[in-house]
Amino acid sequence: MAKATQLINNEVFRAFATYAAIVLLKMMLMSLITAYFRLTRKAFVNPEDTASFGKGESAKKYLRTDPDVERARRGHLNDLENIVPFVGIGLLYALSGPELSSALLHFRIFTGARIFHTFAYLIPLPQPGRGLSWAVGYAVTFSMAYNVLKAVWLL
Amino acid sequence: MAKATQLINNEVFRAFATYAAIVLLKMMLMSLITAYFRLTRKAFVNPEDTASFGKGESAKKYLRTDPDVERARRGHLNDLENIVPFVGIGLLYALSGPELSSALLHFRIFTGARIFHTFAYLIPLPQPGRGLSWAVGYAVTFSMAYNVLKAVWLL
Amino acid sequence: MAKATQLINNEVFRAFATYAAIVLLKMMLMSLITAYFRLTRKAFVNPEDTASFGKGESAKKYLRTDPDVERARRGHLNDLENIVPFVGIGLLYALSGPELSSALLHFRIFTGARIFHTFAYLIPLPQPGRGLSWAVGYAVTFSMAYNVLKAVWLL
Repeated sequence: MAKATQLINNEVFRAFATYAAIVLLKMMLMSLITAYFRLTRKAFVNPEDTASFGKGESAKKYLRTDPDVERARRGHLNDLENIVPFVGIGLLYALSGPELSSALLHFRIFTGARIFHTFAYLIPLPQPGRGLSWAVGYAVTFSMAYNVLKAVWLL
Repeated sequence: MAKATQLINNEVFRAFATYAAIVLLKMMLMSLITAYFRLTRKAFVNPEDTASFGKGESAKKYLRTDPDVERARRGHLNDLENIVPFVGIGLLYALSGPELSSALLHFRIFTGARIFHTFAYLIPLPQPGRGLSWAVGYAVTFSMAYNVLKAVWLL
Repeated sequence: MAKATQLINNEVFRAFATYAAIVLLKMMLMSLITAYFRLTRKAFVNPEDTASFGKGESAKKYLRTDPDVERARRGHLNDLENIVPFVGIGLLYALSGPELSSALLHFRIFTGARIFHTFAYLIPLPQPGRGLSWAVGYAVTFSMAYNVLKAVWLL
């Protein structure tokens, strides 16, 4: 267990683990939001999901798309496209030996930006609110990738 | 190479690596299932993919959606939404020094639940089979995230 | 910081970090390509994104799908389905103590195949160009998973 213990004694790694867990939980929350909208808007995609509403034509009308469901799904996909690179590049960054203060700055800005992005998408806020929060998160991940490549470059 | 060797001597890490590889391979299998349905149902989305069926109108009829293809694609997306957080949070959890027995319990339940989920989606089984297997996997990842945050919390 | 320093002194890990950062940046690039096509083709999905084009009916006509936007989105999703397993399995593989030469071979072929895949998808090149580059990347990830399971197997 020596190795594991060592890693969680590293403050940068502990900070990364904290923020990575938070943004991954936030991403998982999108599943619940989508399920909530599917149930309240009665908008499903699989025939077996509407079986409890009766048989035949009466249940078929619930096999439809709903704007709120689609919005939550787009927010979820946007999280996959942005939070997954953050977690992958952030892990490499945390292991590349950055200053704790720089690392915390990256992790905090990214996490704040993605939480804001979710509210901006779901409320929805007028643009460019959502676009800017997306760009901030993107820039943070890009900055970490630059630092990783500078530290480890071996092609 | 000292570090790498150390990590694979850690039993919790070895268990994580085994189950993470299995569920990631299971997720990759969805690509083959989608490709199988696209080829057997002759349902494609890119014009260049139907070029071997002839030119012009004769090939265009294969640019269509098919229920089996769409079902496999939804199963694949659901894997991305659930297996990716498991791998990210599971890695942090494995490095946070849990008991081997607790870790194995988490990994085994998650892996079993996701394999069941795939069968439930593709056959398809009547609900709530698929919904429950999704919820079990979700709860396991949530439990690991809770343990990670308890062990590493540094905001 | 001892642990972090150790890991980036491991050459296989440095090689993995380099290639993982490159393919994750390549995946992130798909967001910019999609945004470029959305702006130049004026094809949006969220009503709030078209507000700057005027109010009411005049802006509604930009809420539409466009073949180039959809093509870039499919390329992005294909990256998620293939690059994410590469990063997850590749990390485990890098930590399982492979020879540097074998590891570099895996990482280089995968990275080359995925860059080719993106060009094949966006230009688009005639099949089987895109299909083969997808299969090469898939086979590399599968080979790494096999090596991981051989090295760590603990079920």
